[in-house]
Amino acid sequence: MTINQKKKYLIIGTGALGGFYGAKLANAGFDVHFLIRSDYNYIKSHGLRVKSAAGNIVIDSTNCYKNASDMPKGDVILIATKAFSNNQLKELIQPVLKDSSAVVLLQNGLGGEDYLADFINNTQIFGGLSIVAVSRDAPGLIHHHDFGSIKIGQFNPDGLPRKTTQVLQDIVYDFIRAGVKATAVSDLMQARWEKLAWNIPFCGLSVILDADTKKIVSDQNTLSLCAEIIKDVATAAASCGKIIPDDFQRQMIDITIKMGPYFPSMKQDFDAGKPMEVEAIFGNPLQAAQSSGYFPPYISMLYHLLKFMEHERKGSTIT
Amino acid sequence: MTINQKKKYLIIGTGALGGFYGAKLANAGFDVHFLIRSDYNYIKSHGLRVKSAAGNIVIDSTNCYKNASDMPKGDVILIATKAFSNNQLKELIQPVLKDSSAVVLLQNGLGGEDYLADFINNTQIFGGLSIVAVSRDAPGLIHHHDFGSIKIGQFNPDGLPRKTTQVLQDIVYDFIRAGVKATAVSDLMQARWEKLAWNIPFCGLSVILDADTKKIVSDQNTLSLCAEIIKDVATAAASCGKIIPDDFQRQMIDITIKMGPYFPSMKQDFDAGKPMEVEAIFGNPLQAAQSSGYFPPYISMLYHLLKFMEHERKGSTIT
Repeated sequence: MTINQKKKYLIIGTGALGGFYGAKLANAGFDVHFLIRSDYNYIKSHGLRVKSAAGNIVIDSTNCYKNASDMPKGDVILIATKAFSNNQLKELIQPVLKDSSAVVLLQNGLGGEDYLADFINNTQIFGGLSIVAVSRDAPGLIHHHDFGSIKIGQFNPDGLPRKTTQVLQDIVYDFIRAGVKATAVSDLMQARWEKLAWNIPFCGLSVILDADTKKIVSDQNTLSLCAEIIKDVATAAASCGKIIPDDFQRQMIDITIKMGPYFPSMKQDFDAGKPMEVEAIFGNPLQAAQSSGYFPPYISMLYHLLKFMEHERKGSTIT
Repeated sequence: MTINQKKKYLIIGTGALGGFYGAKLANAGFDVHFLIRSDYNYIKSHGLRVKSAAGNIVIDSTNCYKNASDMPKGDVILIATKAFSNNQLKELIQPVLKDSSAVVLLQNGLGGEDYLADFINNTQIFGGLSIVAVSRDAPGLIHHHDFGSIKIGQFNPDGLPRKTTQVLQDIVYDFIRAGVKATAVSDLMQARWEKLAWNIPFCGLSVILDADTKKIVSDQNTLSLCAEIIKDVATAAASCGKIIPDDFQRQMIDITIKMGPYFPSMKQDFDAGKPMEVEAIFGNPLQAAQSSGYFPPYISMLYHLLKFMEHERKGSTIT
């Protein structure tokens, strides 16, 4: 099968995550268009590079845009902006949206799709969860540390599973052709809670303790604390009808023990003086569990500690 | 009534706390003997001073000792060392102990009296809880910021209340004559858990967030987190048979809102590169509650975070 070169992929937000998947797709021959904020000038002149043990990628000639209004309309619109700017999504997406667009929200946490549902038909909205360790090491240079798989599911406002559509299968197949281990999931909320079982302990503790994942799992105290936090996330998920089995909980720790030292994206944001995705990753799951009758103490404590830390650091700038 | 000038008060550990109460007693005319480690030379030459809005104290001529073996035997032995060196108590106390000595452990947290019960008759063991904001600002200079009251109760290995004895009443009366608001309590463990309802949130959060008490109660997130933590301590206490009413819980926050910015002693220790009383204030209450069938999530999380922070700071020195 040949790649449909007329199918336009739009990357909304070319940070580490958007840059990585965009580069993979472009490298495979897809027609990819990048909306870029901070590194626009650099990438326009020098292109986009991915440094990876799985193979370096160099995209010399990139379709770069500073403003969404200059972009073509997208067949698949991948949103890789940070959740804390989701209130700007309508403005960013409307210019590039057509009736047949599929909009994939590549974000962690809960609640992001609701911003899209405000102006996009539910059937056009998808959520993506990626297990990938990437960082932006310099302008236009993305460092791929480990992993890279992605799960995509269709949004369902009631949080229940939804039958996999042809549109979803096509997107997943495009990713696979781009060398990404992609899977279609019928239950997007299940996938979101599963991802939270990693993000909540490791994003939270890395910021609060100023520690990378290796340090966290190497200390017996934080190792057992991680297990307690993951259990709390699983109980919160269960209150929302999503079951995270014990095996899966243990796996979150096991994969982290096996991977190299890593600062999760939230820690990268914090150290760069940027806002953190505290509401998406902690606040919204806390509220979701509370609404379902379970008050998760660990999530609540992490949430309050992070909010305090964010408030304390007043001079933060959004880039 | 005149002061019994033959009654010897021994202060074992002349830090901020021991120095403060020792100076109050000496200033009132009691025969006070100070075991001093770090500030020995200074206090020997220049005496001991307390700077306080309630009245400054200057003790020019102080009975100073570097070694317990040089001290006279004590009628009342006040232990004001840190809980993390409780394994040294036997060595420190045995030289100054007589059959009629009353030994008062002026420490926060749980488990300290068990070290004494190893070599002292239960009836001679007392526990003291002080609500006082003091710091050692310079050698021989103690800064009394606020409060100063003390509760003293007799040790009971089974944790139940014990009838107030004449010995206890006499000690309490001595403190009152020294200008200290002192009270005898029949239920030492109740008093210890009540004190933990302040220490656990404010010691823990001040270290983890590098914040004074004023900052903690001024932020809405940490303010409500404090209430959650105090509730957890109250549930842990209840599992051990000690009831901390809602009113009392709220009071812990109200008094902290009213007091000036303050770094709790554990935060002072941490900043000075000293060990923290993590086991006494967090680890032992966690174990006590667990043994009674309640697992306190907030205490557990604070405990693990503090242990990690202590381990990370490898170059710590004990003074």
